Amino acid sequence: MTAQELYGQILRKQSFLCVGLDSDIKKLPEHLLSAPNPLFSFNRAIIDATAAYAVAYKPNVAFYEALGASGWAQLEQTVQYIRQHYPELFIIADAKRGDVGNTSRLYAEAFFSTMNVDAVTLSPYMGRDAVQPFLDYSGKWAVLLALTSNPSSTDFETLPLAGGQKLYETVLEKSAGWGTVDNTMYVVGATQAAMLAGIRKIIPHHFLLVPGVGAQGGSLQEVVKYGRNEQVGLLVNSSREIIFADNGHHFAQAAAEKAREIQKIMSYELDFRQSTC
Amino acid sequence: MTAQELYGQILRKQSFLCVGLDSDIKKLPEHLLSAPNPLFSFNRAIIDATAAYAVAYKPNVAFYEALGASGWAQLEQTVQYIRQHYPELFIIADAKRGDVGNTSRLYAEAFFSTMNVDAVTLSPYMGRDAVQPFLDYSGKWAVLLALTSNPSSTDFETLPLAGGQKLYETVLEKSAGWGTVDNTMYVVGATQAAMLAGIRKIIPHHFLLVPGVGAQGGSLQEVVKYGRNEQVGLLVNSSREIIFADNGHHFAQAAAEKAREIQKIMSYELDFRQSTC
Repeated sequence: MTAQELYGQILRKQSFLCVGLDSDIKKLPEHLLSAPNPLFSFNRAIIDATAAYAVAYKPNVAFYEALGASGWAQLEQTVQYIRQHYPELFIIADAKRGDVGNTSRLYAEAFFSTMNVDAVTLSPYMGRDAVQPFLDYSGKWAVLLALTSNPSSTDFETLPLAGGQKLYETVLEKSAGWGTVDNTMYVVGATQAAMLAGIRKIIPHHFLLVPGVGAQGGSLQEVVKYGRNEQVGLLVNSSREIIFADNGHHFAQAAAEKAREIQKIMSYELDFRQSTC
Repeated sequence: MTAQELYGQILRKQSFLCVGLDSDIKKLPEHLLSAPNPLFSFNRAIIDATAAYAVAYKPNVAFYEALGASGWAQLEQTVQYIRQHYPELFIIADAKRGDVGNTSRLYAEAFFSTMNVDAVTLSPYMGRDAVQPFLDYSGKWAVLLALTSNPSSTDFETLPLAGGQKLYETVLEKSAGWGTVDNTMYVVGATQAAMLAGIRKIIPHHFLLVPGVGAQGGSLQEVVKYGRNEQVGLLVNSSREIIFADNGHHFAQAAAEKAREIQKIMSYELDFRQSTC
């Protein structure tokens, strides 16, 4: 999928919502636990209920790996289900991978070929050759961690370098030259919304994947104010707030209501900003 | 396993060899490909042939994920096989994980509880809360990337910070305070052997996991010269050089010969250094 195609989906759905499938087995509705594939059953219901309001889904791989091979199989089932029933959706494997070149090629194969997602989140620490194998896949995306939403992001990400920039700013500036706006995206935590303005000076045209709205405290309005670009340029992720809105028999309906609520705010923000641009 | 117990194994086997199970399906002996679980069949033969010469095994998770759920199951089989037949061995999942705290907890569960390895490699980019859940497991280890062996390690790892240190030096200094020498280890590429002396000034007592000897060009003698400490403090990894020493019917025997050859050099280095200390 190109950036232009993703933008088209955003306009069509009036939404830049990414639903995070952080499907923690410990938080699933109890009545699903007796099913043979509880994570997949849960995801399928959540996807069916929320697909009208979202342009992207982001399973976090940790929640599947925690169940071993069975979890991995249910992650594959989830991706296949989206591909079959909602081919317009953008699928991000939140895997935060990154390894030496010959190994990163295998990770790229795992996610882009074997599993067939559109994008994978990657850690930039090891530099370009850990990222390049992902950029070599046509139509697929590398989503690089830049400024994350966790408290410890100040340990290294925001350290000032000798040249004056902070580490995450150099990550953005340097890596932006590795690929294009059609295959590179950045993770920028919404808890740091005011820093989005500075980030937009470095990478005005790239899409940003923004986690941390909702449960982690970020404000959607702030993110749009500081982060939006000419193609919206934002995927705002919400996970627990949507998928665990209710953990009884009506969990999917509750998730749909929460997703629709967020989509309405997004639609309002898109129109409002368009009319003032 | 504690650092002292690992040191005990090193003395007993006169080896600090870690065999990297980078079991690339494309490089496996052809006669194994018709088996139902070719990666596991390969690993089992390699482990049986080399266990006398090694203290640790390091499956790189990418090579298993590339096969999807089936690959993940074969990784689990491999770990179980080592646990059953060679309980003294130290098992490192080379996964290079790292995520926000609540997600890293799930990765820690995946590897330490569901899979039951001793250690996991982690990217330090997101800071302490991505690492802490791994340190919270008693008897288990976090293996943090510091200075890796890939050419692009100069993109970010060696960047000078405003305070004068390089990024990887600050990673070492700061993270050494998060855990202890009994639960924290560092990846330091052997292609940078001369830099080991500087690293030892920052973390004199920690174990180092050193990849890149052999196929990636590092010298074992140099690594020992600059990296050894009072408990040896080194696990030197060799992957392709051992496991793909031959790809015919005698692949396991060829792997054993290569592992024994490396173990002999290690034994010599250990004695030589002890007699001159």
